[in-house]
Amino acid sequence: MEFFKEVSKVSYEGKDSRNPLAFKHYNAKQKIGSKTMEEWLPFAMSWWHTLVAGGADPFGAPTALRTWNDKELMEASKMRVEAGFEFMDKLGINYFCFHDRDLAPEGKTIQETNANLDLVVDILAEKMSQYNKKVLWGTASLFTNPRYMHGGATSPNADIFAIGAAQVKKALDVTHKLNGQGYVFWGGREGYETLLNTDMKKEQDHMAYFLSMAVDYKEKIGFKGSFYLEPKPKEPTKHQYDFDVATCMEFLAKYNLDKHFSINIEVNHATLAGHTVHHEAHLARINDMWGTLDINFGDPLLGWDTDQFPTNIYDATLMMYEYIKQDGFTNGGLNFDAKVRRGSHTMTDLVTSYIAGMDTLAWGLKAAHNMIEDGYYEKNINERYATYQSGIGAKIDKKQTSFDELSQYANTLEEPVLLSGKQEVLEAELNQFIWNAVSK
Amino acid sequence: MEFFKEVSKVSYEGKDSRNPLAFKHYNAKQKIGSKTMEEWLPFAMSWWHTLVAGGADPFGAPTALRTWNDKELMEASKMRVEAGFEFMDKLGINYFCFHDRDLAPEGKTIQETNANLDLVVDILAEKMSQYNKKVLWGTASLFTNPRYMHGGATSPNADIFAIGAAQVKKALDVTHKLNGQGYVFWGGREGYETLLNTDMKKEQDHMAYFLSMAVDYKEKIGFKGSFYLEPKPKEPTKHQYDFDVATCMEFLAKYNLDKHFSINIEVNHATLAGHTVHHEAHLARINDMWGTLDINFGDPLLGWDTDQFPTNIYDATLMMYEYIKQDGFTNGGLNFDAKVRRGSHTMTDLVTSYIAGMDTLAWGLKAAHNMIEDGYYEKNINERYATYQSGIGAKIDKKQTSFDELSQYANTLEEPVLLSGKQEVLEAELNQFIWNAVSK
Amino acid sequence: MEFFKEVSKVSYEGKDSRNPLAFKHYNAKQKIGSKTMEEWLPFAMSWWHTLVAGGADPFGAPTALRTWNDKELMEASKMRVEAGFEFMDKLGINYFCFHDRDLAPEGKTIQETNANLDLVVDILAEKMSQYNKKVLWGTASLFTNPRYMHGGATSPNADIFAIGAAQVKKALDVTHKLNGQGYVFWGGREGYETLLNTDMKKEQDHMAYFLSMAVDYKEKIGFKGSFYLEPKPKEPTKHQYDFDVATCMEFLAKYNLDKHFSINIEVNHATLAGHTVHHEAHLARINDMWGTLDINFGDPLLGWDTDQFPTNIYDATLMMYEYIKQDGFTNGGLNFDAKVRRGSHTMTDLVTSYIAGMDTLAWGLKAAHNMIEDGYYEKNINERYATYQSGIGAKIDKKQTSFDELSQYANTLEEPVLLSGKQEVLEAELNQFIWNAVSK
Amino acid sequence: MEFFKEVSKVSYEGKDSRNPLAFKHYNAKQKIGSKTMEEWLPFAMSWWHTLVAGGADPFGAPTALRTWNDKELMEASKMRVEAGFEFMDKLGINYFCFHDRDLAPEGKTIQETNANLDLVVDILAEKMSQYNKKVLWGTASLFTNPRYMHGGATSPNADIFAIGAAQVKKALDVTHKLNGQGYVFWGGREGYETLLNTDMKKEQDHMAYFLSMAVDYKEKIGFKGSFYLEPKPKEPTKHQYDFDVATCMEFLAKYNLDKHFSINIEVNHATLAGHTVHHEAHLARINDMWGTLDINFGDPLLGWDTDQFPTNIYDATLMMYEYIKQDGFTNGGLNFDAKVRRGSHTMTDLVTSYIAGMDTLAWGLKAAHNMIEDGYYEKNINERYATYQSGIGAKIDKKQTSFDELSQYANTLEEPVLLSGKQEVLEAELNQFIWNAVSK
Repeated sequence: MEFFKEVSKVSYEGKDSRNPLAFKHYNAKQKIGSKTMEEWLPFAMSWWHTLVAGGADPFGAPTALRTWNDKELMEASKMRVEAGFEFMDKLGINYFCFHDRDLAPEGKTIQETNANLDLVVDILAEKMSQYNKKVLWGTASLFTNPRYMHGGATSPNADIFAIGAAQVKKALDVTHKLNGQGYVFWGGREGYETLLNTDMKKEQDHMAYFLSMAVDYKEKIGFKGSFYLEPKPKEPTKHQYDFDVATCMEFLAKYNLDKHFSINIEVNHATLAGHTVHHEAHLARINDMWGTLDINFGDPLLGWDTDQFPTNIYDATLMMYEYIKQDGFTNGGLNFDAKVRRGSHTMTDLVTSYIAGMDTLAWGLKAAHNMIEDGYYEKNINERYATYQSGIGAKIDKKQTSFDELSQYANTLEEPVLLSGKQEVLEAELNQFIWNAVSK
Repeated sequence: MEFFKEVSKVSYEGKDSRNPLAFKHYNAKQKIGSKTMEEWLPFAMSWWHTLVAGGADPFGAPTALRTWNDKELMEASKMRVEAGFEFMDKLGINYFCFHDRDLAPEGKTIQETNANLDLVVDILAEKMSQYNKKVLWGTASLFTNPRYMHGGATSPNADIFAIGAAQVKKALDVTHKLNGQGYVFWGGREGYETLLNTDMKKEQDHMAYFLSMAVDYKEKIGFKGSFYLEPKPKEPTKHQYDFDVATCMEFLAKYNLDKHFSINIEVNHATLAGHTVHHEAHLARINDMWGTLDINFGDPLLGWDTDQFPTNIYDATLMMYEYIKQDGFTNGGLNFDAKVRRGSHTMTDLVTSYIAGMDTLAWGLKAAHNMIEDGYYEKNINERYATYQSGIGAKIDKKQTSFDELSQYANTLEEPVLLSGKQEVLEAELNQFIWNAVSK
Repeated sequence: MEFFKEVSKVSYEGKDSRNPLAFKHYNAKQKIGSKTMEEWLPFAMSWWHTLVAGGADPFGAPTALRTWNDKELMEASKMRVEAGFEFMDKLGINYFCFHDRDLAPEGKTIQETNANLDLVVDILAEKMSQYNKKVLWGTASLFTNPRYMHGGATSPNADIFAIGAAQVKKALDVTHKLNGQGYVFWGGREGYETLLNTDMKKEQDHMAYFLSMAVDYKEKIGFKGSFYLEPKPKEPTKHQYDFDVATCMEFLAKYNLDKHFSINIEVNHATLAGHTVHHEAHLARINDMWGTLDINFGDPLLGWDTDQFPTNIYDATLMMYEYIKQDGFTNGGLNFDAKVRRGSHTMTDLVTSYIAGMDTLAWGLKAAHNMIEDGYYEKNINERYATYQSGIGAKIDKKQTSFDELSQYANTLEEPVLLSGKQEVLEAELNQFIWNAVSK
Repeated sequence: MEFFKEVSKVSYEGKDSRNPLAFKHYNAKQKIGSKTMEEWLPFAMSWWHTLVAGGADPFGAPTALRTWNDKELMEASKMRVEAGFEFMDKLGINYFCFHDRDLAPEGKTIQETNANLDLVVDILAEKMSQYNKKVLWGTASLFTNPRYMHGGATSPNADIFAIGAAQVKKALDVTHKLNGQGYVFWGGREGYETLLNTDMKKEQDHMAYFLSMAVDYKEKIGFKGSFYLEPKPKEPTKHQYDFDVATCMEFLAKYNLDKHFSINIEVNHATLAGHTVHHEAHLARINDMWGTLDINFGDPLLGWDTDQFPTNIYDATLMMYEYIKQDGFTNGGLNFDAKVRRGSHTMTDLVTSYIAGMDTLAWGLKAAHNMIEDGYYEKNINERYATYQSGIGAKIDKKQTSFDELSQYANTLEEPVLLSGKQEVLEAELNQFIWNAVSK
């Protein structure tokens, strides 16, 4: 059964193509520096937004025209597997990511739920082998089921904590079985609605303990994939504990978990926290903590996670700049945590939206590669901080001075001449790099 | 010379008074629990907003009618000392806080600048003794002088770093001389405008080294006061390194500075970072990091630091709730980092605004004290987390279980019955506590 | 069948009560000025948030424990009627508001849908008579059904426009039959997602024509209730056409609809547009356009419509201040467009939340009444603008001068002495009025 | 005397140039459709940001290195004239805009102030003739002087209103004398800080009367330029009366001023109001109200008017799309209401920043021109709304139907098939248009 009937295998037609079902910039086998685009960009399909989401929002019912609408739950799950591999195959996407509950419906008991999951996982395993596709990461949804309304690992109810642990254990088993390259912890309900009813210290202690048990379990079963923590502020709880990259780093360090985790940055989560994704990526990178990426974009004028397909070339370029700087990821990838707009409701919209996103990231990759090859920005930065290369500056850099020495030195100075920060020129040059990336 | 001519010593007239020049709720000698209000609330006058600020904004010139307008700079500085002590005396405020540059104007050279400062400090010392007033904390302005336009401790220019170090050294000397109880580091220009020209890792390393040299110098001169880091996002640099409490804790821990610093929380800085002040205070408290407080309030609909006088009784109450929970501060206090609105331009507005703020905080103190005495919220929280007191919950709390054990346990469970979070009732009860605080 | 089993008729126990199932401030028969509280405050139950909503959010399934969960759709609708009247009866609420789709489920055809609705409406009519309850306003949901994904009155598809018109016609018939006092137009999907695919002029022309046909139809059937337009920005479309009160007034005036409509202000919609509700109410009042009110409150740190139960006494007081100033509404009322937090999932939470809201509004009413009786703010305003009562000011007020005359006059002036705006004192006094409202 | 010593006449070097002192995209004489770039883009230099602003911000002193620093006030004003014409000449900018107070300093009396102004205006007139430069618009600053702290046209003090009127009269005289093409009213202090002390109706009546007197005076002196109202929210007053385009249109219509004014849209003001500039331009255009443009860009993560030089190609393209659609302006132009970042403090930064901005707008113009020539978006929109071209749709469009007819029609319908909104494809195509604009 073919699901995406209007779509053949999507091919690269080059920058002048006007075919919405062709790539204009993503050319899998084209080399960018030492790697092909496909190597640089381990794109992943998100099971939830691509195959499960139907376009419901707080004001309306699902709109998406999907072949599995009105099918019985397990039947729909199986159809999604078929559709998912057809989708990845046609787009040339090699990875996918999933929550346990995306794959198969919950049953009436934990046992039944796990049986549903196992059944789908077996089909998945077969398809993966057949299509040569891989799991970028798995995760467990500790936020959809009503039982998690006050938290999962931070629930005020110990039985819920236990059920959550059981669920994550199973999700780890499944991810391990499917040779997943990683596992993401996103604390969907880990936060508070009001401090008037919350013991935040206890909740954070529990959350940390939950993660440390996951680390133990990972070692026990010999799972070699990476563990990622995913920052997000404000949604769905009023205050999510994993607010942003800095907050996650603080938490991991405090509980001695930093050796076991790196960060899954999501673009729209960065902006909701008041940061650019450039900032979050840079911060994680210089702390050796950036492990993987959820690509999407948010609307800067809207105050919630809109998870739009990435079409902004500035953010794509600046993310890729940081990404190339750390030579990509070890186990991570670029997961499309993006959903079609509610009004883009056809099956074909899924394909054209992924193409839009993949082209944008490919374009950003090329622009960022050129920026780094050219050395323009690094040269400027080197000049800007040149005074730290010798004299008193070098002493500062090497931590070999003191307030007393610096004070004596300062007393001898004329007013220093400052270089311009040249922000406007640097921004204009960025436009040039972006343009050059596709014109030559 | 009398500066606040319309104002006598401000006295407590009780809650029914309509005299804008009297306290309605702040009654210095009244006991709240084991301490008097005055002991609970070590209010401090901010030198800058109270004595220096003139009401200029990005769109207009100063409006404030001040006796020292049009006076020569050093003459004005001396008049401000006179006015400041009259002000504290009339309001019954026992502390003040200052930046070095609030006290005395800069000269043409560092030497001249320091001489100006020393001259005013000598007068200050005398007045402090005469009026029995104390320095809550001192600080240095590494943000007003144009030389700091790209940063102080994070300047790309090593000479600026050195000049900043010299300036902080001097400010520490002065604070020490005046027996200051603390010293605040607010990184006014420590952040970036664009990552396109910034070496963030180098800048943060420099900032940490700067602070560690300050710790060394503090020990060298035997200064016993506390060191505070002050979080603030977005202003004046696009990205301030000390974004919020969590970010500061991460930074301090990473550079092994956490033993030497605690946090100065400012209300409006919390809201600009997307947090309530209740959150920031709570987070700092449960990490033993809350050292002192800058009181003001922001407008939730405006996107910059409005530094308004605190008149919101909810925030006052919830701050005081956290404050009493940690039994107040060791060396810290409540500094009015608040400025009169630009249109409140008379000398008397300064007094009535402080009264408004002190009354609001006193009211909040009483409400919070009653909340804690009553035990209503703690009782509710204890019930909410009761499942962690025995059985599997106790094992979780004590970190004596595993995913395997929890999974087996979960398999035996019926769906747990969850208690309501009761947020609406808890909020309504808060209104009752606030009302009761002043009605009885 | 009793639905709210833990709840008896809710009675007024006074300000010292700690019973969460009693009123502390709302005392229906107590006179506030010339009217009783009940007369001042025509509270309405929102059918959707109270009886239909289940607590689903974009990240999770419904949580609410409701007797009608798992019931067949029409059976559930009938149970909601029973529960709704029990609820209104126990709380002493005299009005309710509904969308057509809250009352009864959609069928497979328009005919079936209308039959479902008629059946429930007949039961409603009987209950209304039995319990002496009234419809504050009705409305139609042109946003839940997928067909409206690109708009209702602004759909790019003419058939959808026609279906929407048919639906509103029916909703008007039903509201008329139930003697509704009003009808609300909230343009749930009337806006755009991207201008790249939108003909905004055509869409606004269509929307205006839709409203004008509704006016015609209203007259045809002799419906005497009021028509209200409800401003809301940003949700669910990126740009809603009815952004705020000013935008609605502009739209109504442009299309000559202003005589036929007034405004339904919602608190949380005001804040999402960047305004206080005080502003929106004041603006509508001074333009004789404020017809009714949706009461709830938003979280100023969150960027979407949280529809929280109103417990903030400041907003309640300032809304009531504007409300008393215009001597209340003609046909309007105070509709609780508020929903229990997702974690407040029991039937009893519905009751305690309404009590919290009603008490807060009653408190605000008393405070505002006192403010106006006292005349403090009006006296201050009169003094502030006193220069317009005579001389050149009176000429300006009466529009009897010119730039030439004013220029000549200005040339003769010394620099005017300005009064302080005294914002801080006015805010402190507001705290006093709020306190006095419940302490005496 | 030469002020911009590092800069020769800026020439077009084409898209491959890396010279920061050359245009890459702005090629004055190049034809875009029927007009040259220079004709399409009547760029204006803002006197204030370019020649007066020094880089002060709320946290620090001016940083800008300007030749006139430390000069006596009138001397500095004269130097600015010299520098301004050199600047316009070197950049090939043909227009400038000014506030009265940018041109010359205030004196101790109105007479002295006007004399200062007249003196500079005479020099200006001469230079304009010599360099063939024109005034795009003039305006008066009713916001810098402390006397306007509570408003100008909305001041509670009638004498201030009169002084403001005298000032605007003079500014109109001066603009008329210099053959200005327009005059802008930006209500810098026309708004309120708190409704607790504000009579908003009186203030808005006064503001409208002020504008109507300006219209009378304009006619009296025979000034033929356009009058513009400029929307801005939130700054400097908490609530500015001219919040956004819709609010301005409502105000102008209410007071019968709409025939005499059009709108000056500023990019950053749009975003502060929660709108894209695309929205504001589109809204004004379809209402025939878009008269002129202030170009700059804001930081979507910062909550105040950052007035950055425009380097975002998306906004530039979408603005130009609306602009070409209305075939440009009659009397208006593109005024750079943009300021160099505080850290871009050299004279050369002014030039490179203007180049960055002019290149970005030129690029946007080309992209928008291609979009319109291609017809892609219009074709898509035509298809999307095609159902309104015949049958029931045409009846709706022509306002020839009724709820009754539509209801009967709807009863006959099958569920309509909806076209996808295709937002993602339209965004991807936008990237293509932007790229094509400079690559061919």
